[in-house]
Amino acid sequence: MIHFENDYNEGIHPELLKTLVETNEENLSGYGTDTYTQEAVEKIRQATNCPQAQVQFLTGGTQTNQVVINSLLASYEGVIAAETGHISTHEAGAIEFSGHKVLTLPHENGKIKAADVAAYLADFYADGNHEHMVFPGMVYISHPTEYGALYTKAELQELSELCDQYEIPLFMDGARLGYALGSPETDVTLETIAELCHVFYIGGTKLGALIGEAVVFTKHNMPKHFTPIVKQHGALVAKGRIFGLQFSRFFTDNLYVEIGRKAVAQAEELKAILRDKGYRFYYASPTNQQFIIVENSQLEELAQKLAYSFWEKYDDEHTIIRLATSWSTTDQDLAALREVL
Amino acid sequence: MIHFENDYNEGIHPELLKTLVETNEENLSGYGTDTYTQEAVEKIRQATNCPQAQVQFLTGGTQTNQVVINSLLASYEGVIAAETGHISTHEAGAIEFSGHKVLTLPHENGKIKAADVAAYLADFYADGNHEHMVFPGMVYISHPTEYGALYTKAELQELSELCDQYEIPLFMDGARLGYALGSPETDVTLETIAELCHVFYIGGTKLGALIGEAVVFTKHNMPKHFTPIVKQHGALVAKGRIFGLQFSRFFTDNLYVEIGRKAVAQAEELKAILRDKGYRFYYASPTNQQFIIVENSQLEELAQKLAYSFWEKYDDEHTIIRLATSWSTTDQDLAALREVL
Amino acid sequence: MIHFENDYNEGIHPELLKTLVETNEENLSGYGTDTYTQEAVEKIRQATNCPQAQVQFLTGGTQTNQVVINSLLASYEGVIAAETGHISTHEAGAIEFSGHKVLTLPHENGKIKAADVAAYLADFYADGNHEHMVFPGMVYISHPTEYGALYTKAELQELSELCDQYEIPLFMDGARLGYALGSPETDVTLETIAELCHVFYIGGTKLGALIGEAVVFTKHNMPKHFTPIVKQHGALVAKGRIFGLQFSRFFTDNLYVEIGRKAVAQAEELKAILRDKGYRFYYASPTNQQFIIVENSQLEELAQKLAYSFWEKYDDEHTIIRLATSWSTTDQDLAALREVL
Amino acid sequence: MIHFENDYNEGIHPELLKTLVETNEENLSGYGTDTYTQEAVEKIRQATNCPQAQVQFLTGGTQTNQVVINSLLASYEGVIAAETGHISTHEAGAIEFSGHKVLTLPHENGKIKAADVAAYLADFYADGNHEHMVFPGMVYISHPTEYGALYTKAELQELSELCDQYEIPLFMDGARLGYALGSPETDVTLETIAELCHVFYIGGTKLGALIGEAVVFTKHNMPKHFTPIVKQHGALVAKGRIFGLQFSRFFTDNLYVEIGRKAVAQAEELKAILRDKGYRFYYASPTNQQFIIVENSQLEELAQKLAYSFWEKYDDEHTIIRLATSWSTTDQDLAALREVL
Repeated sequence: MIHFENDYNEGIHPELLKTLVETNEENLSGYGTDTYTQEAVEKIRQATNCPQAQVQFLTGGTQTNQVVINSLLASYEGVIAAETGHISTHEAGAIEFSGHKVLTLPHENGKIKAADVAAYLADFYADGNHEHMVFPGMVYISHPTEYGALYTKAELQELSELCDQYEIPLFMDGARLGYALGSPETDVTLETIAELCHVFYIGGTKLGALIGEAVVFTKHNMPKHFTPIVKQHGALVAKGRIFGLQFSRFFTDNLYVEIGRKAVAQAEELKAILRDKGYRFYYASPTNQQFIIVENSQLEELAQKLAYSFWEKYDDEHTIIRLATSWSTTDQDLAALREVL
Repeated sequence: MIHFENDYNEGIHPELLKTLVETNEENLSGYGTDTYTQEAVEKIRQATNCPQAQVQFLTGGTQTNQVVINSLLASYEGVIAAETGHISTHEAGAIEFSGHKVLTLPHENGKIKAADVAAYLADFYADGNHEHMVFPGMVYISHPTEYGALYTKAELQELSELCDQYEIPLFMDGARLGYALGSPETDVTLETIAELCHVFYIGGTKLGALIGEAVVFTKHNMPKHFTPIVKQHGALVAKGRIFGLQFSRFFTDNLYVEIGRKAVAQAEELKAILRDKGYRFYYASPTNQQFIIVENSQLEELAQKLAYSFWEKYDDEHTIIRLATSWSTTDQDLAALREVL
Repeated sequence: MIHFENDYNEGIHPELLKTLVETNEENLSGYGTDTYTQEAVEKIRQATNCPQAQVQFLTGGTQTNQVVINSLLASYEGVIAAETGHISTHEAGAIEFSGHKVLTLPHENGKIKAADVAAYLADFYADGNHEHMVFPGMVYISHPTEYGALYTKAELQELSELCDQYEIPLFMDGARLGYALGSPETDVTLETIAELCHVFYIGGTKLGALIGEAVVFTKHNMPKHFTPIVKQHGALVAKGRIFGLQFSRFFTDNLYVEIGRKAVAQAEELKAILRDKGYRFYYASPTNQQFIIVENSQLEELAQKLAYSFWEKYDDEHTIIRLATSWSTTDQDLAALREVL
Repeated sequence: MIHFENDYNEGIHPELLKTLVETNEENLSGYGTDTYTQEAVEKIRQATNCPQAQVQFLTGGTQTNQVVINSLLASYEGVIAAETGHISTHEAGAIEFSGHKVLTLPHENGKIKAADVAAYLADFYADGNHEHMVFPGMVYISHPTEYGALYTKAELQELSELCDQYEIPLFMDGARLGYALGSPETDVTLETIAELCHVFYIGGTKLGALIGEAVVFTKHNMPKHFTPIVKQHGALVAKGRIFGLQFSRFFTDNLYVEIGRKAVAQAEELKAILRDKGYRFYYASPTNQQFIIVENSQLEELAQKLAYSFWEKYDDEHTIIRLATSWSTTDQDLAALREVL
């Protein structure tokens, strides 16, 4: 079977594994107080050119979104997101479970427009009855989006200024951030993100970590006493070394971005193969996830040849499926794909 | 000033006041264990023709919606509602605050269609990924809706059967239920509601109670140990007599429905006046709330003559405003209105 | 039957009823924006000599405790209270339901000692591991306590200074505050309370209101956007007039304190009767609640003669019962009691 | 430095590491649906002799306690625990954060007595006012306790029968379960635990896992739709293989118990060394954690020689410190300790 179904079905990137193995017998203090975690924080500060960055490592995307949103919002606030945002659709209601409404806006390939956010905010404060409504207290975006799309620097700037104007944070979900940073089509760097977003997270799991995401607060805005907050969410990990070691390696020799770059280059090759074989694209994604529209009658046959993900119904006769390259995709995988299609 | 801005700006219906005054010196046990509360429950059982009905009195609509929804849903479930549903728009996120997502559907004058609910439910269970999504655990409807519209018996039947099929409760928000029951255009009685809804509440505040709503569980489905649940929501009232006395009177001599009937008849007169004066209706509401479309430039002048409610923007030049009759509207109010318009 | 079982089994004080009746037909804006509510706030500011006081009316004690504690604490904070504190024992876990631990200390007749609080706070911050523990974020006291006892001014001062030192609020539950203020044995006035407590509530229900408590924030410390916070707790009442009218009357001609004074004087007479009849006191309460120790074998016979409350087991053969005077106790009640005992 | 401060400061047991490395390149489906996770579940079923066991893997102890307690309790229920129970003292209020009170009982070395639980339950239901109190909905025990103590089979049986009688689950926190199973002084096996506890967890982190705990529901009592429940707690891990692989290895060739056995044998040697050197024991713990009472004046000197944990104040002049062996303790560590003391 050739695997393109997602970017988290293999274990851990060999370089990260190496660092875990080499340090395994070291005695390191727990709960994120070890030296490797401090080292990782420093390297992230350098990579983001944000010396004041405050960093917390967590285990997965839903946990990260929940902890960040829940700890930054007041109880009467909700979070603005695309109606297709991960927090809105695929986190089993984790945001509402922690008390907050997701306020949804229309999207284009998963992106929201600053103009729509501006209109929402203006309308909210124009309504005389707004004390009976949910206050918009944060803007959540995914980069890349759930559809693999990328914000431009100009778009982020607009969103950032809007958030500054309303004094609410702009939060970027970077579950697949490496695949954004590694795209040839982006003008957005880690520095840009740290400058324009009030908080964001650097996804580890989908870039080759065994487990782990790094939340970065860029404006000295990490909530006070964040450790007990993380603890009471059940999110504090005893052997914090696991995060420190992996992220320290991710941010050595630019590994994190290089992983993304290679996978996106492979995604371009994937696109070429699919195009050559006559497949129809949902849209031309600039990152590691590609979406094609397939006749329902062909799905089963295709599934014999390669592992893909069902994405969504396109119409009664067609389905959108996702093919993704990842940190673990090999050139052999692509050659094999060209063969079987 | 002539008042048509809403149905809760005056105090208490004279008949209800009378019963409070007459019994004031009686020593009655607290927290809903008094005889008048028991009497009110019995009368509601009779009026709904639902001998097994379980009734709990609460203070207001948002509290009622929160307690009912939060206590009936599992943590992983959300509630389906119109995108204009009160729980979705004007309860400051009380449902999400208690942990549950409001899953919204399009509406027509505040009503949702069984076909849309059916499609939502079918799609949900068809999605292989639904364990990462919010389970639809209840259907919430308002009757009358926030726009004064009414479900027909056939529509309720469809929704009810759908809920039975998926084993989720149908919950009717009856904040203005009396104005539905008192409409000449309805084929839905209290008995119908008790038969088709798994839980509903009989709104007191907007029908002339000083404070108080009556939740009715119709299928022996009141959550176990509901008293501590109500208590932990801060919703248990020491002098429960206040509810028992008012609702006992509401359901004596059909007062509750008669209050609604009179106000809806007055709303018909209100419609006639507005029509005669050339006002344009948003739609012809069959209950006590009427919605008209007014040029923005005329709003201020109108506000000099009568108290109305801003409802929503219609377009850049027009606004929808609400005029409502109520249990306290007098024929003099209507005569005066005809005069000034 | 002679009633001394509690102070909330009769309806509403005649003076409060009069004001409700007289204003019943007035059109007043909703949700606490009416003029009577503003009037009540002003009168409370005067009575407390606290011009900057921020006041919010709520329906009952548990709701008030929950809303105040939940809105003032950070998520990682708990509230220090006596192990017998109402929030700790008889609110069905409402504080924990809203996310916060009650951190209990030993008590004497319901009172906690500043020294114990000081030791708790010092120990907490001395523990190197305290980021894995619940932060003490507030001190909760009841005045009178659940046992009818009173703090002295000196004791409140000590607690207040300690709270200032640790920058946490001192919160006084005044469910029966009138019976404290009306006691001849107290040196604590409303002014003292407003000066020393960061937030407190003035109990209405047990002093003769039909429903209603008044929360007073004394240090410009009402949480931002408190209205939506109250709303999302299901605690915002449409006909806010009910609170405004009653509390405006309570604080006209010193009625609130006079009600307490009369009932405490009657409690002294109650004590005399019980003493004369040879009953043994649990301790000499200075307020309206009296606690006596009765042989279990006598309980049933006593229950034939008067309504009392079971309080707690004293030992295997004895029970503590409570007798309470209230705003509605008459001299005839006392005379009848002397007769039957 | 010689390390005896805890049992989670080194990385991962070599055997577990080996299995991670060997399978690293395998493509495995996510979120716990992989074959190794299924394999681990089967092995746990065999090791517990509980073929119907339902198993869920989570990341850490606090998360596990929160998810289990929150998902099994009704909203109005709390959990009975020792006042020293981990959930009561060192989880930053995670249980209350998720809505539930911890109902504490006195302890002996961390253990609670069935008689105390029985009295608590009987008193609760005897109190006529119990609908205003928190219902006891679960009994939580730690085995070994936070003080390293062990329940006997007879004690567990008593607790289990009591729980059955009141129809509430007995939940065992097994963060260090291997060190209990490996103690020569225990008559409690995994089979016993699965038979007597309704739910328990097998601690991985402190027994040599990099991350991971295994919750076992023994009576077909895993909450319905547990996956979305876990997800909404932010506790579902994408690369579930990490748990499946480690626990599959733990339960191959009895590795889990053998790890415990070796560490407890080393703890006996540790005791001997400490005894020989004249140290005073807090009590003779039968598991891997040992507690000694040291004069405050000696603490600093001792800290030069070995890493230990501060436990608690014994009196004004003495402190209890903890020394722990673990899966990673070597005989050289012990020899070195004998040398330096």
